[in-house]
Amino acid sequence: MHSFRNDYMEGAHPAVLDALVRTNAEQHPGYTEDAWCEKARRAIKREIARSDERGALSERGIDADELDVEFVAGGTMANLVSIAACLRPHECAIAAPDGHINVHETGAIEACGHKVLVTDDADGLLSVAGVDDVMKEHLYGSNFHMVKPRLLYLSIATETGLVPTAADLRSLRAYADEHDLLIFIDGARLACGLASQRCDASLADVCAAADIFTIGGTKNGALFGEAIVIRNRDVMRDFRFIMKQKGAVTAKGRLLGVQFDALFSTTGAQAGVEEAIGDEPLYFSLGRHAVAAAMALRETLVRHGFDAFASDSSTNQQFLLLDNERARAFMRLFDADEIAHPDSDHTVVRMTCSWATRKEDVEAVDRELARMETA
Amino acid sequence: MHSFRNDYMEGAHPAVLDALVRTNAEQHPGYTEDAWCEKARRAIKREIARSDERGALSERGIDADELDVEFVAGGTMANLVSIAACLRPHECAIAAPDGHINVHETGAIEACGHKVLVTDDADGLLSVAGVDDVMKEHLYGSNFHMVKPRLLYLSIATETGLVPTAADLRSLRAYADEHDLLIFIDGARLACGLASQRCDASLADVCAAADIFTIGGTKNGALFGEAIVIRNRDVMRDFRFIMKQKGAVTAKGRLLGVQFDALFSTTGAQAGVEEAIGDEPLYFSLGRHAVAAAMALRETLVRHGFDAFASDSSTNQQFLLLDNERARAFMRLFDADEIAHPDSDHTVVRMTCSWATRKEDVEAVDRELARMETA
Amino acid sequence: MHSFRNDYMEGAHPAVLDALVRTNAEQHPGYTEDAWCEKARRAIKREIARSDERGALSERGIDADELDVEFVAGGTMANLVSIAACLRPHECAIAAPDGHINVHETGAIEACGHKVLVTDDADGLLSVAGVDDVMKEHLYGSNFHMVKPRLLYLSIATETGLVPTAADLRSLRAYADEHDLLIFIDGARLACGLASQRCDASLADVCAAADIFTIGGTKNGALFGEAIVIRNRDVMRDFRFIMKQKGAVTAKGRLLGVQFDALFSTTGAQAGVEEAIGDEPLYFSLGRHAVAAAMALRETLVRHGFDAFASDSSTNQQFLLLDNERARAFMRLFDADEIAHPDSDHTVVRMTCSWATRKEDVEAVDRELARMETA
Amino acid sequence: MHSFRNDYMEGAHPAVLDALVRTNAEQHPGYTEDAWCEKARRAIKREIARSDERGALSERGIDADELDVEFVAGGTMANLVSIAACLRPHECAIAAPDGHINVHETGAIEACGHKVLVTDDADGLLSVAGVDDVMKEHLYGSNFHMVKPRLLYLSIATETGLVPTAADLRSLRAYADEHDLLIFIDGARLACGLASQRCDASLADVCAAADIFTIGGTKNGALFGEAIVIRNRDVMRDFRFIMKQKGAVTAKGRLLGVQFDALFSTTGAQAGVEEAIGDEPLYFSLGRHAVAAAMALRETLVRHGFDAFASDSSTNQQFLLLDNERARAFMRLFDADEIAHPDSDHTVVRMTCSWATRKEDVEAVDRELARMETA
Repeated sequence: MHSFRNDYMEGAHPAVLDALVRTNAEQHPGYTEDAWCEKARRAIKREIARSDERGALSERGIDADELDVEFVAGGTMANLVSIAACLRPHECAIAAPDGHINVHETGAIEACGHKVLVTDDADGLLSVAGVDDVMKEHLYGSNFHMVKPRLLYLSIATETGLVPTAADLRSLRAYADEHDLLIFIDGARLACGLASQRCDASLADVCAAADIFTIGGTKNGALFGEAIVIRNRDVMRDFRFIMKQKGAVTAKGRLLGVQFDALFSTTGAQAGVEEAIGDEPLYFSLGRHAVAAAMALRETLVRHGFDAFASDSSTNQQFLLLDNERARAFMRLFDADEIAHPDSDHTVVRMTCSWATRKEDVEAVDRELARMETA
Repeated sequence: MHSFRNDYMEGAHPAVLDALVRTNAEQHPGYTEDAWCEKARRAIKREIARSDERGALSERGIDADELDVEFVAGGTMANLVSIAACLRPHECAIAAPDGHINVHETGAIEACGHKVLVTDDADGLLSVAGVDDVMKEHLYGSNFHMVKPRLLYLSIATETGLVPTAADLRSLRAYADEHDLLIFIDGARLACGLASQRCDASLADVCAAADIFTIGGTKNGALFGEAIVIRNRDVMRDFRFIMKQKGAVTAKGRLLGVQFDALFSTTGAQAGVEEAIGDEPLYFSLGRHAVAAAMALRETLVRHGFDAFASDSSTNQQFLLLDNERARAFMRLFDADEIAHPDSDHTVVRMTCSWATRKEDVEAVDRELARMETA
Repeated sequence: MHSFRNDYMEGAHPAVLDALVRTNAEQHPGYTEDAWCEKARRAIKREIARSDERGALSERGIDADELDVEFVAGGTMANLVSIAACLRPHECAIAAPDGHINVHETGAIEACGHKVLVTDDADGLLSVAGVDDVMKEHLYGSNFHMVKPRLLYLSIATETGLVPTAADLRSLRAYADEHDLLIFIDGARLACGLASQRCDASLADVCAAADIFTIGGTKNGALFGEAIVIRNRDVMRDFRFIMKQKGAVTAKGRLLGVQFDALFSTTGAQAGVEEAIGDEPLYFSLGRHAVAAAMALRETLVRHGFDAFASDSSTNQQFLLLDNERARAFMRLFDADEIAHPDSDHTVVRMTCSWATRKEDVEAVDRELARMETA
Repeated sequence: MHSFRNDYMEGAHPAVLDALVRTNAEQHPGYTEDAWCEKARRAIKREIARSDERGALSERGIDADELDVEFVAGGTMANLVSIAACLRPHECAIAAPDGHINVHETGAIEACGHKVLVTDDADGLLSVAGVDDVMKEHLYGSNFHMVKPRLLYLSIATETGLVPTAADLRSLRAYADEHDLLIFIDGARLACGLASQRCDASLADVCAAADIFTIGGTKNGALFGEAIVIRNRDVMRDFRFIMKQKGAVTAKGRLLGVQFDALFSTTGAQAGVEEAIGDEPLYFSLGRHAVAAAMALRETLVRHGFDAFASDSSTNQQFLLLDNERARAFMRLFDADEIAHPDSDHTVVRMTCSWATRKEDVEAVDRELARMETA
């Protein structure tokens, strides 16, 4: 039975794996200074420019060619390197309470010396109001007895599968500009976030909103790897020094270049992804596929009476809210992830789809649930 | 023309790559908690036990089964996580002046809060005498105005291709025991170090000498990845927390498990490595191959009059000492690495072999040099 | 008009200042290794032993003679050095939301690499239930994706003038023992805390509950200086190295020794403190005086209709809850500290007494308020 | 017998102590935001402007009024706060091998995350040539595998009593400007350094050369305290946040203000210092006194045949080079500081004078040595 535990259970999408195999014998310089990384950088910048239908980049005077794109092996690494490059010692990040950097990175940001302040955005979507409350409590950074808020951390999608809109991103950016704040967007699940029906933002919108953001490969078709896109020139400066210091420079950097090139230079249609739209890069088609699978899964669950969810996720992760007994029955049938106990009677079970989830995997769920009902 | 610039220019050895391709569609839990990582752990421990011909493990009461084996993506990461796990805030490492942590990791250890003290071991081989001088200067750790030496850092092989003997390792261990010091051995090039004719130490000897050491995959057949072997129980405690905090836990940990399993469960003979001895794991055969290639290369260079070396390397890296003009001529022929200028007239050029260097690559060097002579 | 803004507006109590003047010409070794520091250490240990009426020390097998006592210049320094000495990199502190280390030390603990987790103890008194909720969320320290809770931070008194009872301290200690947690008690206002009518705990009870705690001098009669008392042997080890590294070793350490000796070797009665009880050290008499002044002040305020308080403080700080207009009127009369705006209509005004507040200072408040009423 | 062990054995100069006593009952706001600190700041800036006989400030367009002056309790604290404010994570300091931050601060700079690189300036005087060698090795900051040199650390005087000239300072400044380096000057013993006959630099010259420097009070008449003068606007920004985070903000900041005001607003002549010149502030007269005492002491030592010195110190510390037996005899007579053993036969003994050393203390040395000779 297919496992729905998370979206990093398989290796790489075949198109990515093939690229690695095909280029394996090539000799390249190390440390992401090779031709594949350069090609991937260009492809990513090209896609950022191409996706700017709303004109968000030009409105802010951003030239995609002048962006810096770096590659690191994993998501926590991407987050900590990016944030370390942004902050002076007394400065801190603001995140929603369930922000990945706040809860699930074992204090990686604090280990770089910086506090993470949390808003009261209980749904995990960082809001201007939530940020402003924190700013107010910290006297807008004017009280040296308290940390100085300097960076907004948000993720697309959030931990519970929610997504900001393009308008949300613009509002946060306007607030940040007004209060001398930087914005970092954690895109570990960016492809799924952008593929959500609820998200009208494009890659360009993300780029226009952020000083620095990541494009997650690990959970979207790569064996491993995250791209970091840097717009802010101060943050860009000496970025690779900070990467190296944190152990984030990959010796065989070409591995990252080859993978991101495959994800951004190949189209989803070429790679045979059914959900592909136009000539969008494979990267986005894979996100689209994962979300489509999750929507089909959700529909299946609801049809079988599993219609209570802990969050109104429109992305690739679905969060069933079950009473404990039903959760136990469910977990006997499926390999899912028991992630929380909101009270002593209930359990939240996460079912995750990915680029690797097939139609038949969802159909099998349908069959199992039907069997359970008749049992 | 084959590049001799370094030993991480290609992807993975075909046996390793095949294993990744073969297992790509399997679903596994993340974070090195999968079955492949478990299998690789067992294989590494088995090999440690098997290699204990000298009885170094039993002499120190070490049971290989009780070792902890962790996997991370890269070498700087392996070093910084290992050292961070060893030290309290005021404690520091002692290394030879050219130690990788001292020079080429952009202050990664200092970024974890710890000073690196250096001995006067100009050849890069950490010596008891060198360490004792540093200890004496620091009043053997009794003066709270100075950092407290706590960890010896050495690498096998060193930056200039030298190797300690089993007796060297025993002496350092004895000194460390006497002065309450830990030993960390950086094995980024462990396979080549152990394959050196000058090194009589086995994997077991390394394990017996160290509190914690690494087994480098990146430069010896893997796409990427280093194993960290931990003997000391205090260092072992909560090690994965520290890994996670530093961004060193690989989401698809199975990638590391699959690769290290291929390197340690397959024999070199099975994988068709000519230099393989007995049923030694592929890992060691690859090191043996790289060193054999380097010895052939060295012999070729010497034969053509390139007989001055900056270090008496017996491993896979050879360091030509050339006057500047000759260096320029050499570099026009070969893709090598210009690594130092010991004085204004001379250049050190590094030629590196690896598991991927073929006989014909060395023969091509022979032909090029012959052509140069007749030109 | 006397300022009630805080409890560090004056210099030192005359008995302390006299001691500094008297010993000024003496020559002493530095770094708290002098005879006065030794004398002060003995006096503090003696007082800890003497105050153990409940038998808390002997119950836990604590010999006051084996405690370590260190001296540093200020409170944030005392906190950060103590906590840095307690924690490995991935370990963290748990505090109430308004804990000084969480809000008012500019991320000093995070700058040492450690996260501060907060309970939902809205009143600022760390509770076993609050701690257990945090522990539960962190799977009792078993999930390496999250920080590992390791230290309970509490202060006597809290930021809002509350105090734990001896029973509270015993419960926290029992919980800590059960879950392998350390306890650090911030005693910046320890004297006032222990002088509270609500606090039945003695200095010995504090010592028995804590692995490490501080005895604040800055806010209780000293020019500056905090004593750190360490019971836990692992925390004690190399403590002065960590002090030195953080800049916390005072060159003329004798200044701290002389002051704490004056506070603990002189009795309050000898120094002429009216509130002194028996032969208690001056240190405690000064706390008693400050609390008595605050109780008189509170009674005065209530008598004049200022009877709404933001916290039920029984110590030297009183927190008036006023509507904004009344707050403005009040602040025109008195030099107090406007510390919070719980909503848009209200202001919290803090009035603080100290060892330096005289009867006539409180009487002047009475007169001013009477005048205001008749105005 | 007077001890010559170091220059922080006594309390404060009477003029300073009197000022503390006189102002003890005053009420002041905390955290160096009081009127005394403001007065001291103005006095220090005034003196910087006044001392600019050479025109170094105006030449560099420096307006003393726009300097920032901060106060902290001790020297290590001053150094670590200043350097932490200057550097991004991957940047590092360059110092002479015996630099205080490199040897005697228990890794305080590394604990802030930064490496300290050392030149080969064996005499402890940082030289342009020494710095350039380090810069060259680090490819002038262009190689991200190595730390990026960013700050020059020098002290006036050095650990062995040497002093740079005004020309030395100008050269270092020119080099720093050329290579985008900052300069931090540790002035823990600034008064004695500037009082040296060999030092032609003024306070203004120091200010013109440095981006940030300290004026040490602890070893020159204060009970404790160092002023930090910041010229560089980027370093100035949020400086007090970083101070607070490191525990360096003194609650009763007025203590520092009162002391530095006494040292800079009183003249040495007013305070009765015999060596005072013109209307120079007491601070400089005290340095002058200490150096005069040391010169008299040196002359006395030489006269009695103690004429071998480990360093050619022209400041308040003298470093006798003695064979071990003679050192033992000497140490039986005097309370001095045995600081090094350059080889197995010799000992370096440090004799330190200070503002508190009286003529009769030196005469007593003369008598003792005479007695020893006749014995």
